[in-house]
Amino acid sequence: MKIFLAQQNYHIGNFENNTLKIINAIKEAKAQNADLIVFSELCICGYPPRDFVEFDDFINRCYAAIDKIKEYADTIGVLVGAPDRNLARNGKDLFNGAYFLYDKEIKAVQHKTCLPTYDVFDEYRYFEPAFNWQVVEFKGRKIAITICEDIWNLGDNPLYRICPMDILMQQQPDVMINLSASPFDYTHDEDRKATIKSNVIKYKLPLFYCNAVGSQTEVVFDGSSLIFDRDGNLCKEFPKFKEHLEGIVLNDDGTIDSPVIEPREMVPDQLLEPLQLSETLNIAQIHDAIILGIRDYFTKMGFTKAIVGSSGGIDSAVTLALACKALGKENVRAILLPSKYSTTHSVNDAEKLSNTLGNPYDIVAIKNIYDSFLNTLKPIFKDLPFNIAEENIQSRIRGNLLMAIANKFGYILLNTSNKSELATGYGTLYGDMAGGLGVLGDCYKLQIYELAKFINAEKEIIPENVISKAPSAELRPDQKDTDSLPDYAILDRVLYQYIERRQGPDQIKALGFDPALVDRILRMVNMNEYKRNQFCPIIRISPKAFGVGRRVPIVGKYLS
Amino acid sequence: MKIFLAQQNYHIGNFENNTLKIINAIKEAKAQNADLIVFSELCICGYPPRDFVEFDDFINRCYAAIDKIKEYADTIGVLVGAPDRNLARNGKDLFNGAYFLYDKEIKAVQHKTCLPTYDVFDEYRYFEPAFNWQVVEFKGRKIAITICEDIWNLGDNPLYRICPMDILMQQQPDVMINLSASPFDYTHDEDRKATIKSNVIKYKLPLFYCNAVGSQTEVVFDGSSLIFDRDGNLCKEFPKFKEHLEGIVLNDDGTIDSPVIEPREMVPDQLLEPLQLSETLNIAQIHDAIILGIRDYFTKMGFTKAIVGSSGGIDSAVTLALACKALGKENVRAILLPSKYSTTHSVNDAEKLSNTLGNPYDIVAIKNIYDSFLNTLKPIFKDLPFNIAEENIQSRIRGNLLMAIANKFGYILLNTSNKSELATGYGTLYGDMAGGLGVLGDCYKLQIYELAKFINAEKEIIPENVISKAPSAELRPDQKDTDSLPDYAILDRVLYQYIERRQGPDQIKALGFDPALVDRILRMVNMNEYKRNQFCPIIRISPKAFGVGRRVPIVGKYLS
Repeated sequence: MKIFLAQQNYHIGNFENNTLKIINAIKEAKAQNADLIVFSELCICGYPPRDFVEFDDFINRCYAAIDKIKEYADTIGVLVGAPDRNLARNGKDLFNGAYFLYDKEIKAVQHKTCLPTYDVFDEYRYFEPAFNWQVVEFKGRKIAITICEDIWNLGDNPLYRICPMDILMQQQPDVMINLSASPFDYTHDEDRKATIKSNVIKYKLPLFYCNAVGSQTEVVFDGSSLIFDRDGNLCKEFPKFKEHLEGIVLNDDGTIDSPVIEPREMVPDQLLEPLQLSETLNIAQIHDAIILGIRDYFTKMGFTKAIVGSSGGIDSAVTLALACKALGKENVRAILLPSKYSTTHSVNDAEKLSNTLGNPYDIVAIKNIYDSFLNTLKPIFKDLPFNIAEENIQSRIRGNLLMAIANKFGYILLNTSNKSELATGYGTLYGDMAGGLGVLGDCYKLQIYELAKFINAEKEIIPENVISKAPSAELRPDQKDTDSLPDYAILDRVLYQYIERRQGPDQIKALGFDPALVDRILRMVNMNEYKRNQFCPIIRISPKAFGVGRRVPIVGKYLS
Repeated sequence: MKIFLAQQNYHIGNFENNTLKIINAIKEAKAQNADLIVFSELCICGYPPRDFVEFDDFINRCYAAIDKIKEYADTIGVLVGAPDRNLARNGKDLFNGAYFLYDKEIKAVQHKTCLPTYDVFDEYRYFEPAFNWQVVEFKGRKIAITICEDIWNLGDNPLYRICPMDILMQQQPDVMINLSASPFDYTHDEDRKATIKSNVIKYKLPLFYCNAVGSQTEVVFDGSSLIFDRDGNLCKEFPKFKEHLEGIVLNDDGTIDSPVIEPREMVPDQLLEPLQLSETLNIAQIHDAIILGIRDYFTKMGFTKAIVGSSGGIDSAVTLALACKALGKENVRAILLPSKYSTTHSVNDAEKLSNTLGNPYDIVAIKNIYDSFLNTLKPIFKDLPFNIAEENIQSRIRGNLLMAIANKFGYILLNTSNKSELATGYGTLYGDMAGGLGVLGDCYKLQIYELAKFINAEKEIIPENVISKAPSAELRPDQKDTDSLPDYAILDRVLYQYIERRQGPDQIKALGFDPALVDRILRMVNMNEYKRNQFCPIIRISPKAFGVGRRVPIVGKYLS
């Protein structure tokens, strides 16, 4: 049996586009003598459709798309993902379904059982868990169909009380097929392979795993569809961050007609800590995820051109380099916005960067506008000393100028804030926190240095001086980040323990950090939730990014 | 048996404050010869604690608080809400529990079964549904304990497959007690009474219902704790939007020792549509909910003083009036920020308003700053015609000035955007969309006129001219909202169908609205999700507010 996996990039709610993609893949697979083609979870509407599924109209469009697609499922079996209405009296109105199409009919629908409702996932918000499980018989094989999380309910402390594969095994299936929409983070590649392999070892069946690819606002799906034989060998690994269609033969004896891929050395968990991110594989994945995140945001929003405030600092330099790669240097405009406190080397470094990248740039000094703000505010501020108010005025003048140029010429402002700043509230709302997409908002400062080194691996793109100088916001004379923040080498480690690992203050202090400093950092994080709440979407590369996957009370009084 | 309900306002994560409040109520109830005192859902940590419960440290603090409180539960039974760890191998790590304390011990913990995971609720993100149900025997009575949503699983299409009261009835309880944290919206008062009454009628038992009060960022809990006798009569209704502690005797024969309250006329559902909001009861509730929303945001964040950009328009006028009521006029500073396009009457109206309210105000003209922006941008803008870029520059200058004064003097900027604007994207990010709290963001424009009339009911506070003139942003000569938007009388009706009622385009058109206009409005709503995503928290007064309760893909392509 020749089974194709279609690893595709869908656009949420764009039924026309998604349906066309799916039909084209079916045609291509048929031309290559496919018996069966498998698509990813909720491919019909795109994943995650979020509250769109609360609209009857949206669900009707899903059914209409399936009606169209099933006309192409004549001599080929087709597995697609879409919502399905729950016709029972009790429970939520919808299931998350895998539709098996054949003979131009819907032959079966298997519902998802394990509904991830944590981090960026909200599936129980919309869907009722499956309560019927049935293998699909097709061309003499019994296929056990599961959806994404359904095969993740393993280990010592499984998250769900029902494990659907355990139930399906009673019907003696020959092969497992899983439709997924499982997003990237820098730990996920190895986790995914280990989990799929555990299923194969447990159930002694080959597994065809088809994952979505593409970025949906903040969540990046990396593809990496996989095929394991019944002995637990990896036989096929689809590329990361790219669409891919390929057919593999499942032999009659249950073996896979594709050579075994030797596993890479597993990376021990502690090596994946952000502070050891020089590990090449992972920083390359982070780089590629961000590139796809930028590109898909623009493509799916219908935008082409980006604008970046270029300060001569490392965050804007890395943002600019990534944006040029994602969108083309001619589509990325840098604006240098020096203040009276900006150093000459900052402007020089920013110019050098854009000269190397080849992207257009302008210099717009903010001094005159700043002076006019001070004059206008004089009757109110009187002779009160310079403080954070004046610093923020400058930052917000920059935000206003960038947005004005963006509005005038149709650019989208890319935000350059990093995760360390967002965590501690070291940024100005409506100033340097402005923008449509947070390119580096899930990267700690130390990780951004790693990204810069990675970008510079073959030739110097980001000027060495940008990497080596001490970080500064340059909003007052001789300002340094370390005036307000602990050293990033300490700050980032504490933040990582608190944010990614959800360690409490006592646990973090037990690691040897200065207790007063830990309390101060955790307090900064919790007090500044109100700022992050107004921040743009962040391209997610870690297992715990700020934004939709981290939901913290604003008026809370915990550790703050 | 004398049962006290403690309707209290908790602060999320503020264990010290919450524990003290609970202990004080226990002491007071004991002084009044209470047998039992009932608190609200998750009162120990405050509701909703959101991702804080993912911290072991946070859960440990909950247990520590219960340990402290149980010392006061000596001769009095105490029912408090807190998370409880799930010690089973499978399922989520926590339950949402009701702890029964007596004899200075935890005598029982009943877990919540029906976990709301829709709109603003995320309970299945954290909690495993109950799988054990046990009545509590106390002083000769069998008490069936449920938590909030547990008693809402009624009707023709119940949301959950298990109804905990059905199971508890097998143990022949004498009374139902429900611990709730059930938020306000303008339809909720009647819904709640009808639901509780349905339980009483179905199970033929008296019901003691204790609800939380107080605002938690965007969600306002209204209190309104209730006691019904076994015949379905309302015997006690606690005040709305206020703390209240009171004991009522449950007689040995199951009757309630409190006179029956005659039910108010039920308001038919269609009267609750926002366009008929002149219905006095509801507009008064909305008014009170917003006042509490402002006050609690400030109290819980540790703020005292607000700043408002006062334009002479109705939105800022209503915001200012509500803020003065919530915080005291001396704590609310208005800033008038006329541009060259502002009319004289706007400034006059804004001055008249503040003179009536008695709050301090300043006039800060933005012309000089605006000119300096235009001069600075001249080399880039050249002779391109005036368009939205220049409009937004002015709005963002205002945002910057308001934030600068706020930063200098420690004010919090209140945002004045309404739901109609937010829905259609008729506002400037970082300009008039700036602020820490969206006071009117869940009120359609037409509802704001109703609020203005309500505020003016006894004497003219908001100048009549503010109410009667045509709305305008005054960012270009002779601008009117209707240049860009449909009439609010039509716009608000279409928005209501789409947002609150989740009607699709065909359904809305079938109501008789112009089809092209419906498509245009729905497209505006969906295209502008990226703007709302960066907006501040909005005080929620409707069943479907923008913000945490409405989660829509930004890169989606549905109806846009």
